[in-house]
Amino acid sequence: MNKKIALLGMGTVGSGVVNLIRENEDLIHSSSGVGFTITHVLVTDTTKTRTADVSNIRVTDDITEIENADIDLAVEVMGGIDSTKEIIKRFLQKGIPVVTANKDMLAVHIDELEQTAAENNTALYYEAAVAGGIPIIHTLQHSLNANKISKVMGILNGTTNYILSKMAFDGWEYDDALKDAQAIGYAEADPTADVEGIDAARKTLLLARLAFDKKFTLDQVKLNGISGVDIKDIELAKSAGLTLKLLGVAEDLQGKYNLAVEPIFVETTHQLANVHYEKNAVFVNGNMLGEAMFYGPGAGSYETASAVVSDMINSAVITAEAKNVPAENGELAEELADSAYYLRFNESLHDVQSFLASLDVQFENIDTEEAAFRTVKMSGAVLQQIKDKFAVAAAYKINGAE
Amino acid sequence: MNKKIALLGMGTVGSGVVNLIRENEDLIHSSSGVGFTITHVLVTDTTKTRTADVSNIRVTDDITEIENADIDLAVEVMGGIDSTKEIIKRFLQKGIPVVTANKDMLAVHIDELEQTAAENNTALYYEAAVAGGIPIIHTLQHSLNANKISKVMGILNGTTNYILSKMAFDGWEYDDALKDAQAIGYAEADPTADVEGIDAARKTLLLARLAFDKKFTLDQVKLNGISGVDIKDIELAKSAGLTLKLLGVAEDLQGKYNLAVEPIFVETTHQLANVHYEKNAVFVNGNMLGEAMFYGPGAGSYETASAVVSDMINSAVITAEAKNVPAENGELAEELADSAYYLRFNESLHDVQSFLASLDVQFENIDTEEAAFRTVKMSGAVLQQIKDKFAVAAAYKINGAE
Repeated sequence: MNKKIALLGMGTVGSGVVNLIRENEDLIHSSSGVGFTITHVLVTDTTKTRTADVSNIRVTDDITEIENADIDLAVEVMGGIDSTKEIIKRFLQKGIPVVTANKDMLAVHIDELEQTAAENNTALYYEAAVAGGIPIIHTLQHSLNANKISKVMGILNGTTNYILSKMAFDGWEYDDALKDAQAIGYAEADPTADVEGIDAARKTLLLARLAFDKKFTLDQVKLNGISGVDIKDIELAKSAGLTLKLLGVAEDLQGKYNLAVEPIFVETTHQLANVHYEKNAVFVNGNMLGEAMFYGPGAGSYETASAVVSDMINSAVITAEAKNVPAENGELAEELADSAYYLRFNESLHDVQSFLASLDVQFENIDTEEAAFRTVKMSGAVLQQIKDKFAVAAAYKINGAE
Repeated sequence: MNKKIALLGMGTVGSGVVNLIRENEDLIHSSSGVGFTITHVLVTDTTKTRTADVSNIRVTDDITEIENADIDLAVEVMGGIDSTKEIIKRFLQKGIPVVTANKDMLAVHIDELEQTAAENNTALYYEAAVAGGIPIIHTLQHSLNANKISKVMGILNGTTNYILSKMAFDGWEYDDALKDAQAIGYAEADPTADVEGIDAARKTLLLARLAFDKKFTLDQVKLNGISGVDIKDIELAKSAGLTLKLLGVAEDLQGKYNLAVEPIFVETTHQLANVHYEKNAVFVNGNMLGEAMFYGPGAGSYETASAVVSDMINSAVITAEAKNVPAENGELAEELADSAYYLRFNESLHDVQSFLASLDVQFENIDTEEAAFRTVKMSGAVLQQIKDKFAVAAAYKINGAE
């Protein structure tokens, strides 16, 4: 079976797709029976030199030309939000399946696009939009589908994980680690979307939507980035066996939900603590499975293309029943879930210790000079009492601790 | 859509399947549109009390009765090899798909059964046969399908991982750790299949077959179990930052293959080193993806049922093209791949050091009293020279080291 492909976009991921298909063509054909012919590529500048071989491919900057062509599948890797959504929607309305890697667009428009796909008996695939090469989307849809999922939690942004790894391993300040990430091309000149957790929030939304079968909006994801992280806290906590990670967290709290991106400490022996530099990982808790984790590359040309092309193959060989679009909006839980905390104060160690003891909170002083503490699980109300009393220099949850 | 199920077997996994379907029935129906009605259960003793509710299910010890019944899907969780294969084959010949968790049977008969399935336009599903609840089979088939896989390596047996974890964490001798594993029900009274690596070898074969699209036989998997592991080596290597794991390894060495189950040291910071006790994990190297890892429960009633039921759902909602049965037999590589090693000798430290130096092998003495060494990568031929010269008390590969 041969499929005619329109590739929309020819940046890092688009080039990876072209190169991957050329390189693994025989393998894909022999294992799945599918051949792909990229007939059209949409670019903004047709005169630009490409890092992938586009001979025998019609390279155009005119989307109308592609929309009028006879294609079997559209693959969108160009980015953009509202106008890109409209383009994708028009393909779906014609019954043409679409593969997209565009998390920025999906975080806003996925419900509308899946609705359109369902109405037109076709499908939208987006494996590459979350955690790059890690197959977490298909896995949630097809492998963990016998489970009620209670929590999805992951390292969903390679840039911030690289920065936190540099700080932890080399003792660098945040600013230096960021500059290094920019120098090697992991971070953008304007790093806001990464370091403030916006990119991870988009992926958290997409995971939560699948895991809980509810609609969510981006403003429901609480954001705490890493730009305020002090190397001092990373080092104090390291001596207590803790590693700081920026985690996207989506949890079901009895039918209401907590969606957040925030720096959280994990035990150094925890699987997530050993996800270093630009790697990503996603933890899933299911009521039958218990805990499972999926680890791999979160970005990269070929790595992301691996996910895009798996979607392309599946769109050709799997005839799945139409998926249900979530019927209901997910409601946020009002109260913070109980959690253990790492806390550091710009206060006298003695004063803080006395106050914590008066609150009946079990705690442990991490450093004899610094007023840094590790507490056991406490309620959001108790945390608020502490914050009302003292200037808190740092407060991070500790994952999984009692 | 409602599917009528015959469940063959009602042990730990079978009970888990019945309980899972009862507990998550609504969730499965709302997310996938599928309902399952277990119409028949095959048991050996119809008078036995069950740990799952079998009301409204026909419980029989007569397979012929089930074969004559009107069912949509057979789910085999009863074990047995040749006779069970014949039963499964008869369902496939009638065009009825089969889900099986039976690795012992598949390791011998999978080629014949997949051939039968393909000829009858139906399918065989076996997610639960490898690494319990971890969805590695479906992932290799549907998510890493754009990759040429060069290596699959994993902790595929929870019993031996539990024993090695007990030895590493608590400093126990092998015999004591084995007795503990037997006492809590992880190890059988006769632990041979687990501790000698036979169980892991079956799973390694199934992974290799999928990863490389070649047929293999069990006798092609080199076996080295853990019954000979000395706590001394675990402790000496721990001080050098190494953790011993029983790994199933399948690697492509330029079109020939190495299939083995053996204890291998991994760096303590490696993902696999932090897979503790009864947990399983599978590493995959793909030419586009690079490294990915899949971690989770390797056994358990509900955990394994999670995989079985995902197959059941997929058999109902996915209409995939018929899979190709591998056309060729996989040939074993003749030479050992180069590897770094941990070596310990019952010899004078000085004698061994002089000899290793004369071989132009880079090495490091791990302990000033014991003749225990960590070498850099060397060929199988050099290892043989060393073994010819000295009595080697322990020799384990070190994963990934240069």
